[in-house]
Amino acid sequence: MSEVYDTVIRGGRVATASDVFDADIGIVGESIAAIGKRLAAGKREVDARGKLVLPGGIDSHCHIEQLSANGKLNADTFESATISAAFGGTTTVIPFAAQHRGMRLREVVADYHKLAERGAVIDYAFHMIIANPTPETLEEDIPALVETGHSSLKIFMTYDRLKVDDEELLDVLAVARKSRAMVCVHAENHGLISWTVKRLLARGHTAPKFHAASHARAAEAEAINRLIEMAALIDQPIMIYHVSTAEGAAVIRAARGRGIKLFAETCPQYLFLTEDDLDRPGVEGAKWMCSPPLRLASDQEALWRAIALSDLQTVSSDHAPYRLDADGKYPSGDASTFKEIANGMPGLEARLPLLFDAMVSQGRLGLRKFVEITATMPAHIYNLARKGSIAVGMDADIAIWDPDRAITLEDRMMHDRAGYSPYAGRKLRGWPTQVLSRGRMVIEGGALKVDKGTGKFLARDGGEAAKPAQGATNDRAATWRSYVL
Amino acid sequence: MSEVYDTVIRGGRVATASDVFDADIGIVGESIAAIGKRLAAGKREVDARGKLVLPGGIDSHCHIEQLSANGKLNADTFESATISAAFGGTTTVIPFAAQHRGMRLREVVADYHKLAERGAVIDYAFHMIIANPTPETLEEDIPALVETGHSSLKIFMTYDRLKVDDEELLDVLAVARKSRAMVCVHAENHGLISWTVKRLLARGHTAPKFHAASHARAAEAEAINRLIEMAALIDQPIMIYHVSTAEGAAVIRAARGRGIKLFAETCPQYLFLTEDDLDRPGVEGAKWMCSPPLRLASDQEALWRAIALSDLQTVSSDHAPYRLDADGKYPSGDASTFKEIANGMPGLEARLPLLFDAMVSQGRLGLRKFVEITATMPAHIYNLARKGSIAVGMDADIAIWDPDRAITLEDRMMHDRAGYSPYAGRKLRGWPTQVLSRGRMVIEGGALKVDKGTGKFLARDGGEAAKPAQGATNDRAATWRSYVL
Amino acid sequence: MSEVYDTVIRGGRVATASDVFDADIGIVGESIAAIGKRLAAGKREVDARGKLVLPGGIDSHCHIEQLSANGKLNADTFESATISAAFGGTTTVIPFAAQHRGMRLREVVADYHKLAERGAVIDYAFHMIIANPTPETLEEDIPALVETGHSSLKIFMTYDRLKVDDEELLDVLAVARKSRAMVCVHAENHGLISWTVKRLLARGHTAPKFHAASHARAAEAEAINRLIEMAALIDQPIMIYHVSTAEGAAVIRAARGRGIKLFAETCPQYLFLTEDDLDRPGVEGAKWMCSPPLRLASDQEALWRAIALSDLQTVSSDHAPYRLDADGKYPSGDASTFKEIANGMPGLEARLPLLFDAMVSQGRLGLRKFVEITATMPAHIYNLARKGSIAVGMDADIAIWDPDRAITLEDRMMHDRAGYSPYAGRKLRGWPTQVLSRGRMVIEGGALKVDKGTGKFLARDGGEAAKPAQGATNDRAATWRSYVL
Amino acid sequence: MSEVYDTVIRGGRVATASDVFDADIGIVGESIAAIGKRLAAGKREVDARGKLVLPGGIDSHCHIEQLSANGKLNADTFESATISAAFGGTTTVIPFAAQHRGMRLREVVADYHKLAERGAVIDYAFHMIIANPTPETLEEDIPALVETGHSSLKIFMTYDRLKVDDEELLDVLAVARKSRAMVCVHAENHGLISWTVKRLLARGHTAPKFHAASHARAAEAEAINRLIEMAALIDQPIMIYHVSTAEGAAVIRAARGRGIKLFAETCPQYLFLTEDDLDRPGVEGAKWMCSPPLRLASDQEALWRAIALSDLQTVSSDHAPYRLDADGKYPSGDASTFKEIANGMPGLEARLPLLFDAMVSQGRLGLRKFVEITATMPAHIYNLARKGSIAVGMDADIAIWDPDRAITLEDRMMHDRAGYSPYAGRKLRGWPTQVLSRGRMVIEGGALKVDKGTGKFLARDGGEAAKPAQGATNDRAATWRSYVL
Repeated sequence: MSEVYDTVIRGGRVATASDVFDADIGIVGESIAAIGKRLAAGKREVDARGKLVLPGGIDSHCHIEQLSANGKLNADTFESATISAAFGGTTTVIPFAAQHRGMRLREVVADYHKLAERGAVIDYAFHMIIANPTPETLEEDIPALVETGHSSLKIFMTYDRLKVDDEELLDVLAVARKSRAMVCVHAENHGLISWTVKRLLARGHTAPKFHAASHARAAEAEAINRLIEMAALIDQPIMIYHVSTAEGAAVIRAARGRGIKLFAETCPQYLFLTEDDLDRPGVEGAKWMCSPPLRLASDQEALWRAIALSDLQTVSSDHAPYRLDADGKYPSGDASTFKEIANGMPGLEARLPLLFDAMVSQGRLGLRKFVEITATMPAHIYNLARKGSIAVGMDADIAIWDPDRAITLEDRMMHDRAGYSPYAGRKLRGWPTQVLSRGRMVIEGGALKVDKGTGKFLARDGGEAAKPAQGATNDRAATWRSYVL
Repeated sequence: MSEVYDTVIRGGRVATASDVFDADIGIVGESIAAIGKRLAAGKREVDARGKLVLPGGIDSHCHIEQLSANGKLNADTFESATISAAFGGTTTVIPFAAQHRGMRLREVVADYHKLAERGAVIDYAFHMIIANPTPETLEEDIPALVETGHSSLKIFMTYDRLKVDDEELLDVLAVARKSRAMVCVHAENHGLISWTVKRLLARGHTAPKFHAASHARAAEAEAINRLIEMAALIDQPIMIYHVSTAEGAAVIRAARGRGIKLFAETCPQYLFLTEDDLDRPGVEGAKWMCSPPLRLASDQEALWRAIALSDLQTVSSDHAPYRLDADGKYPSGDASTFKEIANGMPGLEARLPLLFDAMVSQGRLGLRKFVEITATMPAHIYNLARKGSIAVGMDADIAIWDPDRAITLEDRMMHDRAGYSPYAGRKLRGWPTQVLSRGRMVIEGGALKVDKGTGKFLARDGGEAAKPAQGATNDRAATWRSYVL
Repeated sequence: MSEVYDTVIRGGRVATASDVFDADIGIVGESIAAIGKRLAAGKREVDARGKLVLPGGIDSHCHIEQLSANGKLNADTFESATISAAFGGTTTVIPFAAQHRGMRLREVVADYHKLAERGAVIDYAFHMIIANPTPETLEEDIPALVETGHSSLKIFMTYDRLKVDDEELLDVLAVARKSRAMVCVHAENHGLISWTVKRLLARGHTAPKFHAASHARAAEAEAINRLIEMAALIDQPIMIYHVSTAEGAAVIRAARGRGIKLFAETCPQYLFLTEDDLDRPGVEGAKWMCSPPLRLASDQEALWRAIALSDLQTVSSDHAPYRLDADGKYPSGDASTFKEIANGMPGLEARLPLLFDAMVSQGRLGLRKFVEITATMPAHIYNLARKGSIAVGMDADIAIWDPDRAITLEDRMMHDRAGYSPYAGRKLRGWPTQVLSRGRMVIEGGALKVDKGTGKFLARDGGEAAKPAQGATNDRAATWRSYVL
Repeated sequence: MSEVYDTVIRGGRVATASDVFDADIGIVGESIAAIGKRLAAGKREVDARGKLVLPGGIDSHCHIEQLSANGKLNADTFESATISAAFGGTTTVIPFAAQHRGMRLREVVADYHKLAERGAVIDYAFHMIIANPTPETLEEDIPALVETGHSSLKIFMTYDRLKVDDEELLDVLAVARKSRAMVCVHAENHGLISWTVKRLLARGHTAPKFHAASHARAAEAEAINRLIEMAALIDQPIMIYHVSTAEGAAVIRAARGRGIKLFAETCPQYLFLTEDDLDRPGVEGAKWMCSPPLRLASDQEALWRAIALSDLQTVSSDHAPYRLDADGKYPSGDASTFKEIANGMPGLEARLPLLFDAMVSQGRLGLRKFVEITATMPAHIYNLARKGSIAVGMDADIAIWDPDRAITLEDRMMHDRAGYSPYAGRKLRGWPTQVLSRGRMVIEGGALKVDKGTGKFLARDGGEAAKPAQGATNDRAATWRSYVL
């Protein structure tokens, strides 16, 4: 035969979202050239006997080197974050290019490109956070940036300095529809949260555990419903981020059943932690503060079911790393109330091992579904055409997992810069031992094998997922759109 | 026997929400003293043979002598409005004491009392419109005014100068819960409407018929859902006004099924007119402009079903009378776009004849249900203890209907000051021929028989309907309330 | 005045489903002649000061002097049962004329008439149990008997010797539609119960507590759904008997929401007892055996909610009295397995006091709702035009309740012949002290005041409730009916 | 490299349920040895440039050489049927081993094995039809036959000579649970259909078009609901066959949403034909008679949506070939009423081209979903481990499609023996040009290339899909199962 493999991953059990089979994988250059039995020798041979050979994970929701609204950077650089991701078996990240008010979106995007070019060890794309949907942003920058491969927007329905109101949300949905971009949304009712926070603080309920109460469950289901009503009217596909409640998942299921085109995700923290984790002495609970907050064991079950039913299609980390200091969790220097504590927790690295342990080692939903929600579906939804599966011609983004390795997670095992893991102490079975990105061995023998800055930007258009459903909603809405859009 | 009747209504067929029977009604002073066969003679004898003797209607949602946000009065005074109501068989109205921004609520209420005292020919209570929920309003005026018999609040989720945002809505719900007042709500999504209006106007869609499109159907269902989520969390009973869409009714039914305590109404315009009525040459369609706008024939069916199922408990007029001139429908003096035209239509007088014709003459749902939704349930919900039924001891508020009188509605038949009826030309069977309020004959022989200012204010506390459900919602919400309220 | 009252009930608080008011009630002959303040003296004066004057209860589902399929009579005669009913505040019963296979329906009905004429002390109607829907029964007897005032049929979807299969069910629905009769149904899946019983016995699970398991919860929801599908297709109104599960109530709510015309009831045993009551040593649990079996506390809550929402409109006793002997609970003389024990429990007398205590004394849903579900709605659904309320012209069927009387129920307090009460030991507040039927004092001072055989048969046609909805279901079904019916 | 390919399919575009990519496929012996770019030469080279290389279809529901209850064979032998299937791109069939009453199941299965061994040109498995669930069948034959690779049962809820009643259904579910076999069900309410047929015939509604009315829509939704209730109670996975109505699909969606483990399919006839096709002069409509009958355009839309949402996971043919003669459609020799006409239509060959045209050429749901519902999901559900995808190590069952070939279907193009196609006249784009089964070229150049009898039996255990959900249903049911199973 004519091929000469640069690398052959030999003797492993390969899985895609569709199939599980024993085969060697031959890599030429950056991509998969062949999958077969007894492939010819490669220049480099990787022994995968007894291992699982899986698509590298795609983490489609993570905050990297991101400037927060108060002007501080989160703990990770693109270097630290992507190294951490790679150690956890992830080979593609989609962090944010985060506009704040007053910023020109195109400059924001350019800035993040520079940061990523300098630091990333794996490939990346960007969602553009739209905090300031001015005419300039909407009519000039978004269309131009979608043209250059940034085909997903992110908006917040809460957070004082980030949120869009309903009119702005409609503006973004309408522009996205025209530009064929996906719209990702943090959906929680701002007023309800804000009102509750004030009341809690006024009554002296200041400990971290009150953070859970401050985001009343209804704030999520309400905002998801509102968002869906508007997206369905505009006929614009959306991705609902980090669903945390059974009620939220139920609203999503009902809407999908009516034919509305929408996607949704949850995160490991909502599958593996509960609000009880927040309830610790002093500000220890700060480690477990994220938004939406951790919920109940019954929510975990509801979210697993929603994954099984594909009401939720992906599980991302929402990695948001804050050190336990004034540059991180306590940006105001005052941690006397939960309101002064930054929301977010690290998770880039632990995401896949947590899910692998639950789904593969313990058998919940199984190996194909693990691949589907961690790699294949993120690739389909965000149109990363060369990522998310193991197939000929695709980028050789591959994680080799030892299904038998038993690990007890510890803070210091993580490679990000948050300095802790909310999952510390947890025992897991299964760990990625080698990780390749575009054929390059990135992680091996517990060590990083590539230079920073070697990751590449993945330009993409909106693809199938971002196309309007056109007509799936009723005729009345179509008439309305003919008047308004 | 010992009683001496002032008035006996003799030989009619009497109906309550529960029963239909043939009996005389003996009135002593202002109230019903006896109901019986062959009652002794009264000082005044009213021949009701061949007639239906029904509780006078309660119109629990109507705008009278109300100053709009732009500083103009609507067309009716308490005199004209209550006369019109009485001619239509209504004996109690609950209009609004309408606060605008910057106004002190207690003064607003005092002002409306003066207007009503001067003009009303039938009894009345007030809902207090809260457009400016300042601490003063919330903490001082509302509790004090509820104490003096004003136990219902009205808020708007839309309209630029009236709407409360979500935090204010929560404030009002929390105060109402403490004061044991009902909260009535105009529930439409403001942002969606506002955004759509701008788009429609920008595209030249300015005719009255675009008013329907400007209030997208989803604006109603969305706002109802949002409202219910918050009211359920606070555990505060609400009344959802003028439900116009099948989707809105479905949200209400689902919420009631979950045990949430809420009430809802629709209006005759949503049962008898459709958005096609808006589509007339020039600004003729202005006559049919109201908010929410008229909808579809399929919505009419859905609303009738919701009435049958008691998902909607009352049907009010939402009487909002505007003359077809610069003081009325065209307040800016410019009617070139639907946005410049005032929303609202008269309906105090036609409400009962329209419903009687449909429900009694044509048989849809029947006579008892007619009494229930037009009189008994409004009395129960708004706690008008002496109104809404024909029973011993209750106020003698009675309308005597000729079930066989055939009428073709005409603009000039109406006694309000709007100058037109949106139902003109409609043929109805059944009309009230005599109307008594607290034993006084108010309407007889087509003429008004009492002086203006003889109606009385009905002080009331919140009663059963305004009591929190306490525990009907889940434990999680109860914990939340223990922290926040 | 011209009336001379035979009886005046003076000074009580009267309640209907619509109103509560203080008034005297004047009775002339058998009916209510006047309701008023300070009525003239009656020949007989009944002091009701401090008392509640309520419509006598209607128990629309009870088994009296009924021959069971095995040829044995249940414990009560019309005399004992109606006396017991009257002591509990009930003034109308609708027991069954129970056809068994091989019996001519018209003879069955004639036989029950004889029994009732001889024994009843209060008024009665009959539901006709159709166990043998032969052409003769369907085409001759049912139409003829409906003509003579027997306008409701009862069928069983389970019980070996009583059940109709799906084709027979359709036959009955079709005949009922033509005759304008209501169809009442015991809806449980026979095959599932039968299969489960065999399995339980084969595994030695023979104690009474396994009776609950033998009627799997799904047997009810399934049969209700099947019944509704068929009734909706035929467009025949139905009454679903003794709903016991949350799932069953949910199916009913959903169907009503789709516009299907159906009624449903539950019984006190499902509101006040649970399957734990069955779990007693030996066969003691036999006292609590009924079908459907007792369920869970969570079902009680669901059923109360369904009552509040009018998904269930009435609460009947399903009185089925068996003594704890070989003529009653143990008809085979062998009580070694739950299968050998008769199903049913007495409840005619305790029904109203139990509901009064919960609804009025403890305040759950209130006095008007108590009247509605125990008297007014049964009268409307079964078209007992002169019963079920306190209104002029109606039969003077009245129960006077002492709301303050505290009672501890005991077996020996009951006047039926079952010999025990499943509610023995329960403390209640509120008890009927005097009971009138058609103006006759039936119960007073704890004693029976009338002779047996003085109750009368109430002939009735199907009325409003039994009318097809005609068109409420979709067009497709209407086409189907045009082919088939 | 070490492999020597027997066949290389070169230059095509390959698709799995997960991925679409350009690659060569190398086959060694019966299975896929390699997938890659520029693979070495094979002994046989197949040019697939410009073609789609897809997994051969799996038709998991088809009737082949099946003896009907009246003792007649359907039109196809294993030879004709599997040839027809192969021409249409299908490489695996799962027909039935059909027990009739009085037959010993193990003998039935042995007989069908003989027929298939003699005739099949592609691989096959069997579902065992259980028409006679005697103890012998349940306790001996089913467990033994599951052991030997027959891990799916089929039962009928309707058809006089095939149906199981509810108790038998429970028996089958319980045995299947123990044996770990899938239970496939024809779910329609027998009594309703039977009753309707009698009524239609009695009223002279005898034309084929009344066949649609004879299976009232409710018969499907009802039976599906009943089946699900019982399967959920037993905790036994089921496959619901040939869903035809929107209502049926809705019941399935709701049950899946509650966590019940169930699968469902529809067939091309319900996606592409409507009941209007039945309405032809004389008995022409017989060609379009199948059960459930064809439905409405709105059902087609509902079923497509259900496929999109994975509420339905597969689309099978339900191939049931009857010639238009006394041995086929008119078994009684009398076709004067629809009741005398056999139900079923051919579809093995047209299934994939119809779906390809709609899904790939016209773009509805796309190529990956086409592969998923026609090959991958049937393989997963029925545990055909080596079938249903293109992956290394799997059987080389491959269909090469020319996406541009335009075809007008004609009766004589079909290779089965029914003699007609219900889709004749339909224009399609896309057709399979070469079909391989286990590496053997079966169809090429419009000709059959293999001998009859070369297909092989696929033994399989129940696999993942047939495993009980264990605990997905509520605790109550688990307790019940602990008593009963």
